[in-house]
Amino acid sequence: MIGTGFMGKAHSNAFRQVGHFFDSPYELGLKVVCGRNQNKLESSAAQWGWAETATDWLAVVGRPDIDVVDVAVPNALHAPIAIAAAQAGKIVLCEKPLATSLAEAESMAKAMRAVPSLVWFNYRRIPAVVFAKRLISEGRIGQTYHYRALYLNQSGSDPSKATTWRYRRSEAGMGAAGDLLSHSIDAALYLNGPITELTAMTQTFVPGRDVDDATLLLARFANGSVGTFEATRYGVGCRNRKTFEINGSKGMLRFNLEELNQLEFLDATEPSSQQGLRNLTVTGPDHPYSTFIAALGDFLGVLARKEPLQGDLDGAVEVQRVLDAVERSATSRTWVTL
Amino acid sequence: MIGTGFMGKAHSNAFRQVGHFFDSPYELGLKVVCGRNQNKLESSAAQWGWAETATDWLAVVGRPDIDVVDVAVPNALHAPIAIAAAQAGKIVLCEKPLATSLAEAESMAKAMRAVPSLVWFNYRRIPAVVFAKRLISEGRIGQTYHYRALYLNQSGSDPSKATTWRYRRSEAGMGAAGDLLSHSIDAALYLNGPITELTAMTQTFVPGRDVDDATLLLARFANGSVGTFEATRYGVGCRNRKTFEINGSKGMLRFNLEELNQLEFLDATEPSSQQGLRNLTVTGPDHPYSTFIAALGDFLGVLARKEPLQGDLDGAVEVQRVLDAVERSATSRTWVTL
Amino acid sequence: MIGTGFMGKAHSNAFRQVGHFFDSPYELGLKVVCGRNQNKLESSAAQWGWAETATDWLAVVGRPDIDVVDVAVPNALHAPIAIAAAQAGKIVLCEKPLATSLAEAESMAKAMRAVPSLVWFNYRRIPAVVFAKRLISEGRIGQTYHYRALYLNQSGSDPSKATTWRYRRSEAGMGAAGDLLSHSIDAALYLNGPITELTAMTQTFVPGRDVDDATLLLARFANGSVGTFEATRYGVGCRNRKTFEINGSKGMLRFNLEELNQLEFLDATEPSSQQGLRNLTVTGPDHPYSTFIAALGDFLGVLARKEPLQGDLDGAVEVQRVLDAVERSATSRTWVTL
Amino acid sequence: MIGTGFMGKAHSNAFRQVGHFFDSPYELGLKVVCGRNQNKLESSAAQWGWAETATDWLAVVGRPDIDVVDVAVPNALHAPIAIAAAQAGKIVLCEKPLATSLAEAESMAKAMRAVPSLVWFNYRRIPAVVFAKRLISEGRIGQTYHYRALYLNQSGSDPSKATTWRYRRSEAGMGAAGDLLSHSIDAALYLNGPITELTAMTQTFVPGRDVDDATLLLARFANGSVGTFEATRYGVGCRNRKTFEINGSKGMLRFNLEELNQLEFLDATEPSSQQGLRNLTVTGPDHPYSTFIAALGDFLGVLARKEPLQGDLDGAVEVQRVLDAVERSATSRTWVTL
Repeated sequence: MIGTGFMGKAHSNAFRQVGHFFDSPYELGLKVVCGRNQNKLESSAAQWGWAETATDWLAVVGRPDIDVVDVAVPNALHAPIAIAAAQAGKIVLCEKPLATSLAEAESMAKAMRAVPSLVWFNYRRIPAVVFAKRLISEGRIGQTYHYRALYLNQSGSDPSKATTWRYRRSEAGMGAAGDLLSHSIDAALYLNGPITELTAMTQTFVPGRDVDDATLLLARFANGSVGTFEATRYGVGCRNRKTFEINGSKGMLRFNLEELNQLEFLDATEPSSQQGLRNLTVTGPDHPYSTFIAALGDFLGVLARKEPLQGDLDGAVEVQRVLDAVERSATSRTWVTL
Repeated sequence: MIGTGFMGKAHSNAFRQVGHFFDSPYELGLKVVCGRNQNKLESSAAQWGWAETATDWLAVVGRPDIDVVDVAVPNALHAPIAIAAAQAGKIVLCEKPLATSLAEAESMAKAMRAVPSLVWFNYRRIPAVVFAKRLISEGRIGQTYHYRALYLNQSGSDPSKATTWRYRRSEAGMGAAGDLLSHSIDAALYLNGPITELTAMTQTFVPGRDVDDATLLLARFANGSVGTFEATRYGVGCRNRKTFEINGSKGMLRFNLEELNQLEFLDATEPSSQQGLRNLTVTGPDHPYSTFIAALGDFLGVLARKEPLQGDLDGAVEVQRVLDAVERSATSRTWVTL
Repeated sequence: MIGTGFMGKAHSNAFRQVGHFFDSPYELGLKVVCGRNQNKLESSAAQWGWAETATDWLAVVGRPDIDVVDVAVPNALHAPIAIAAAQAGKIVLCEKPLATSLAEAESMAKAMRAVPSLVWFNYRRIPAVVFAKRLISEGRIGQTYHYRALYLNQSGSDPSKATTWRYRRSEAGMGAAGDLLSHSIDAALYLNGPITELTAMTQTFVPGRDVDDATLLLARFANGSVGTFEATRYGVGCRNRKTFEINGSKGMLRFNLEELNQLEFLDATEPSSQQGLRNLTVTGPDHPYSTFIAALGDFLGVLARKEPLQGDLDGAVEVQRVLDAVERSATSRTWVTL
Repeated sequence: MIGTGFMGKAHSNAFRQVGHFFDSPYELGLKVVCGRNQNKLESSAAQWGWAETATDWLAVVGRPDIDVVDVAVPNALHAPIAIAAAQAGKIVLCEKPLATSLAEAESMAKAMRAVPSLVWFNYRRIPAVVFAKRLISEGRIGQTYHYRALYLNQSGSDPSKATTWRYRRSEAGMGAAGDLLSHSIDAALYLNGPITELTAMTQTFVPGRDVDDATLLLARFANGSVGTFEATRYGVGCRNRKTFEINGSKGMLRFNLEELNQLEFLDATEPSSQQGLRNLTVTGPDHPYSTFIAALGDFLGVLARKEPLQGDLDGAVEVQRVLDAVERSATSRTWVTL
């Protein structure tokens, strides 16, 4: 595990628990946690049971007793670590967004295609999102007309968060676009297919900050639908409101991460008097495992069944391609074709 | 009353009822209803109590026994009728959008400034919207960061509606932009001030139709906030979902026309553990008068108190200016400055 | 019209407007409004268009030029006025609850059976409630297991309301039981059929007050289901929360008066993964006519079609029979069989 | 661990995970899982990491290498196992309801007072419920008027569930009253204090079944408030709807287990126009640990700090005392004083 921050903890928890929720032939041993801050390293090792700590990631990714490297560091470090790990033949797990630029992402993909890999775009593993995908595939909402997605949080106005690496271009590459919009784009590509063109704008509310506080865009999809996306760290009043809504010729779907076991569905083929958004509970509250565990469990299953593995990686590159178009559009103030 | 359609009925109801809900020194006599279809004229006269019917609007607006002319006809006829009525010295009430182009709107405004007038942008009279305006004016949400507005209905997929004049450019000028977006723009200008620039797209889902089924835009406001707008007749699953949401440095507001007595408010200056969207009931269910009645009641009050009257008219021209920019942006695929 | 209070106004509005929403062969002329307070009489006449005012109800109900008498006075006066009016051959409209005791109600019914009559239990006219009845009749929720009803308002803690006749046993007969519970019982009998036995309790939170502030009961229905009812004037936080919920072998229904155009329905015969409460919009927001208008419109229709008329009256006596059982149970602290 | 059913799994998960979420000086070793079915024992041991399996609970509770005994078996076996374990000096953890009768519960309490113990009434550990308690203690809702609680699920109409020991009096003691109502009573005693009297009814919808499918009651609390409770296995349409609502002189609280991170609060001391139920998020979605983990973590903390320990036990006896009164009232059809 390279990284001791918030995501490092979330992944550590997933490594510990995945065996309780998913059958797997693999035994995950928590070998080494690697970081720059000795206090954090020790606390992380103690809390999650990492056997060793280390400060030199290059040495760690080269160790022969390590099979898997998890990259949970600031975005700008994803590429060097993930590429080195892949070149050393390790299985590579990498936080999202994959990279800070499309070129970087493509270099990473080139190296990582040689090994099994997972990019932690885990929201698409939420059972309600998977069920939405199934309803769409079964034609239950018909031809898509509209796709709209929000990702609103208020981290920007929280003084304790607004000074981290996520607010510096040199380390994060992007602001809300990388942190938040990337999740919405990933879900949109999964649920509604490729985006063909877009126009975007970015906004920074705080003077002197060099990343976007908010990114907004309009898009056309290959399936003929149109979309709006809004991602912001200044959605005051919203803790973690990640939503999507889809209107199609036969129905409507609506999801809000804040009620992650629920999916709203309207079937427009029913008699008009009986049409209404119905609130489906997609999974019960009995097994509150996190989406990180789900992502890891899926990955280990695919690995065990020796199925092809790079879907995630290609998907993550596609997200990066959209983010790249977003940046270019926001700068040029024009539509950009993908 | 020029017009016998849906809006003609809604206005007739308002004329009949306004006296029950608002004190007014005026006695409204329902003199003449004017239209092209004799059956509809007679039915309208019978149901609402119009004393006479007529088929020649030019003759009607010239009658000396008429004080007020209400224009509730397809958009393309607003300008000739309203201008003629104003030139004849009548008080002019006009459906929204004011016109089918900015040039037309400006001509109308020039003529109508000579007389009292009302444009039926009545959603801004909803008590919950007025209360939102008050909270904003009092600084309760602080500096605005985000304004987002939806107006989604499913009229486009309703075969009984999709063949009316509203779906023909020659009569309506615009599609969803004129019908739906105009309300959202009116509310946004009222609540959040002027728009300085925007980029827009339009979409027509049905081949051969020459108006927009949906219009989407990104905008910047003079107060430094950014906005998204989406208006569509293909929001399958949504009957009449007109919403706005505002995130500001001190709080959040949310409104949905489908629950028109409610306004959601979050006060971000409270202790963090007690922050939550609270559902304010702004008016009780005891007096279910329509927003048309409210608009008319306000207008008669202003008239009686001899207050200046053209605010509405200027506001309606500003809405038309934004719609004009929307059309130009959608055509040129560029940002347009207002 | 006998009465100038809140209900007198609501009824006056209905008389004025019913013709706009319901076809009717009757022309309603607003002849006389009768009350004890001269100021209120004049204000009521001026606002609603009553031709005359009067202070002696006995004289009014005897006038040959009066066809209809509407009784909208404190409950204790319902019986003498309604009986006198019925004996004079007038059509009698009467506020709910019908009376202050079962004996009184039965006397009234005896007199009123000779004439057309309406008791203003108008919540059962709400389109969403009527639609619930239809779904039940069609077997869509199967065998009923549970019926639960709340009627919560906070009028008791509102100093401006808590000193009216509604808080005095001599004039109101009952407190929350008469005002609020009676509506819930009426809806329950309509939707779920007769109650066979019940146990009840009443509570008065304010010392010295001689009516119930809250009444709660458990009940068994003839159809084998069990029910809970709670009505209170101390439901602080709830303006006018009248709800019912029904669980049956095939589904669930839920209604809340605060969102009176909506009915929630779950169809438990669908595949489990697609079951969810769906929010049905039963009437659009276009015609915000009040339930008083609906009650009156239905009544005039029945009258015109010369259909049998006493259903309402018998229903109102049944409600009174349940209220009587509630009072006896609360006093005796035992179950009471109906 | 005595028991291999659903609760055995939930507790096993808690034993495994508590260390990740709560600091504790204790190292929990998963020694022995004990049950009657060899297949279930082996599967449970394999999935959760129990070192041994056993079939004789009496032998297990006597083993000197065991410090803690967790009783997760049908209710009728709680007493013999818990008493034996306590007499052997073990720390005793016991599923709820504590027992199948008040006498049994009191015997258990007598034995268990000698050792540290935990009864798994874990819903009172939900952060939103704890926060509700805090608001009440701080006087934020003032004098309580009404307490209403529902616990509705649809397990009774699920053929796969309706044949287990929970539907047989000999093993479960009670039906919905023990399973569901006990949780609601526990929460009510915690939040609103002692119940002084109650009247109850039970209902069994399926012929031949000897436990209650539903239990309903009215109650008076020592603090002057009145309460309604409804617990049912036939709440078709509701998966696990455990709610409470409290109306007090200064405000209102509302909770629904189905949205367990949310607490609704209305502050009636605010200006009337700004009063509204606000939706508080009491804990973020980042740490989806179960309430079983919370209960265990609290318990270990108390144990480590050598604080007095029997609160839970006494509380569980009080719940049993209320359940006993419920049964007596339902049988005698009278009010019962506690």
